[in-house]
Amino acid sequence: MKKRKFSFNQASVDYYLGGSISQLKEIADPRHTVLVTDENIYTRHAKRFKPWNTIVLKPGEAYKVQATADEIITQLIEMEADRKTTLVGVGGGVITDLTGYVASIYMRGIPFGFVPTSLLAMVDASIGGKNGIDVGVYKNLAGTVRQPSFILYDMSFLNSLPEKEWRNGFAEIIKHASIRDASMFAELEKNSLAFYRRRRADTDMLVRRNALLKTKVVQGDEFEEGDRKLLNFGHTLGHALENQYELSHGEAISIGMVYASSLSENLLGFKDKERVVGLLQKYGLPVRAEFDKDLVMKVLKMDKKRQRESISFILLKRIGKAVIQPISIEEIYRSL
Amino acid sequence: MKKRKFSFNQASVDYYLGGSISQLKEIADPRHTVLVTDENIYTRHAKRFKPWNTIVLKPGEAYKVQATADEIITQLIEMEADRKTTLVGVGGGVITDLTGYVASIYMRGIPFGFVPTSLLAMVDASIGGKNGIDVGVYKNLAGTVRQPSFILYDMSFLNSLPEKEWRNGFAEIIKHASIRDASMFAELEKNSLAFYRRRRADTDMLVRRNALLKTKVVQGDEFEEGDRKLLNFGHTLGHALENQYELSHGEAISIGMVYASSLSENLLGFKDKERVVGLLQKYGLPVRAEFDKDLVMKVLKMDKKRQRESISFILLKRIGKAVIQPISIEEIYRSL
Repeated sequence: MKKRKFSFNQASVDYYLGGSISQLKEIADPRHTVLVTDENIYTRHAKRFKPWNTIVLKPGEAYKVQATADEIITQLIEMEADRKTTLVGVGGGVITDLTGYVASIYMRGIPFGFVPTSLLAMVDASIGGKNGIDVGVYKNLAGTVRQPSFILYDMSFLNSLPEKEWRNGFAEIIKHASIRDASMFAELEKNSLAFYRRRRADTDMLVRRNALLKTKVVQGDEFEEGDRKLLNFGHTLGHALENQYELSHGEAISIGMVYASSLSENLLGFKDKERVVGLLQKYGLPVRAEFDKDLVMKVLKMDKKRQRESISFILLKRIGKAVIQPISIEEIYRSL
Repeated sequence: MKKRKFSFNQASVDYYLGGSISQLKEIADPRHTVLVTDENIYTRHAKRFKPWNTIVLKPGEAYKVQATADEIITQLIEMEADRKTTLVGVGGGVITDLTGYVASIYMRGIPFGFVPTSLLAMVDASIGGKNGIDVGVYKNLAGTVRQPSFILYDMSFLNSLPEKEWRNGFAEIIKHASIRDASMFAELEKNSLAFYRRRRADTDMLVRRNALLKTKVVQGDEFEEGDRKLLNFGHTLGHALENQYELSHGEAISIGMVYASSLSENLLGFKDKERVVGLLQKYGLPVRAEFDKDLVMKVLKMDKKRQRESISFILLKRIGKAVIQPISIEEIYRSL
């Protein structure tokens, strides 16, 4: 297990690479640590949770809501958790978001860490300190920005990751490549989902590369006043679709990336829309969806990146180079 | 209206002294501002709210809970509030706490300010950035520490403040005097509640003195690792009593200050317990209560200042000089 420290404005975060959850004891004291996970992960890996106080939640994005946060808080009170208690989220993005959110408000803030178990959480959700819950159809409408103390990478969790979850992770990986890393984009075009599922050393490298890419973007702009916005490529329309149409996060942002690529073509003369579409398809992701334009506009209007009458959209100038472009709500409506 | 800027770690806060809520327009743009208040204040001062989008809540500590935060969030969504919206709490401590809390989590944080309308909010609750909600009998169990952009003092709100609320405010003023300001303590002994209700220029001075005292303590220790803890004098037992016995905050901490004074006498040889008791009585505050020791211990154990097997109690060495003293849970049980 190798430790690397990354500094952010508020705090620094220890990344433990090539580790195992059995080494969590070296980082967090079992007497004063509470793990948060979901039923799927708990059932699959029951033995790994034995030494720990664990709160087990129902799985799925539908539970990323205040009622679940309330439930975690109730259990923490029953366990007499205090300000010296560390909360550790072991799971995918729903678990890391809920854990970071509750740890940020419980007793006005207690320490927390993550053991991401899905590809998506490893390359994206566990990194950067954003956390939150959904309110109705509005994704992450409530939350905070607060860095975890540590992220422990245990790649063996990928052994039992369902195929659908691999695709979700690759949606964010393709996003990273599209906005920042043309050579990674080319590598993804050359390889395939089956390749990475088989060749774990390559997956390990890919995860590190993506974790580092996102970390660097966040370090440069923790509170999303500039470049961090680029990470929202595909997420504006994606979020508006996700909770309304019960798409997975990866599916929703895949459709969002196709839409943003079309906008890029029309507004900036982006020439490689077909490469983006082709890569998403290669990794089993959907590239179109039927949806109710008016309903989607209603949700889009509540996007956190909206400023009065326009929304900051992330567009591509070319593969590997994204820009922020404010687009008026009217123009979005016309283009949908 | 005079503006004074105070800097904290995270941000600086503008205090507008000697102002009027009619001047709020000079600070916040009515088109992009939402006021939060309660029914009592709204009914009493309806005209003052006319130019503003306002969320009106049921009054009272019983509503300082997540369900009310959810309600505010729902209304903000309906109003299409975005990250550029400023939330302004106009009210007592319940309103300022709820406003600061919701503003800290809505869209991961929007700007906010306060117009404190009660004496307690003016001298204490609106200052220092702590916000939160109660969870069951546990006071402020969930919350954040985040500074408002501004605090606007409009002393005319005190004209309609009920007598009971004056007493609540004086409980915190007596606390400030006890821990930090022996000469203010002597001044309070000389004067009376009736005196301050009549002599508004003196009240104005007293409010400024208390606001400044608390501000200085918080500036020195925003995240409560040291001296800020002193502000919890009377609050440890006070909070444990407050929501269980439906005492007002002032009543509860008054009893808590008497208890802490007794502990100070026994453990530190504090000689002026009777002066503390006498001053609290002079300002109409209760100095004893019957309570269920086991129930109170159960809540005390969840105090945010607990660290494992002891709680940091605030004791007095003398009037004007407080110290932090960890006391074991067992010893507290014996002494109750």
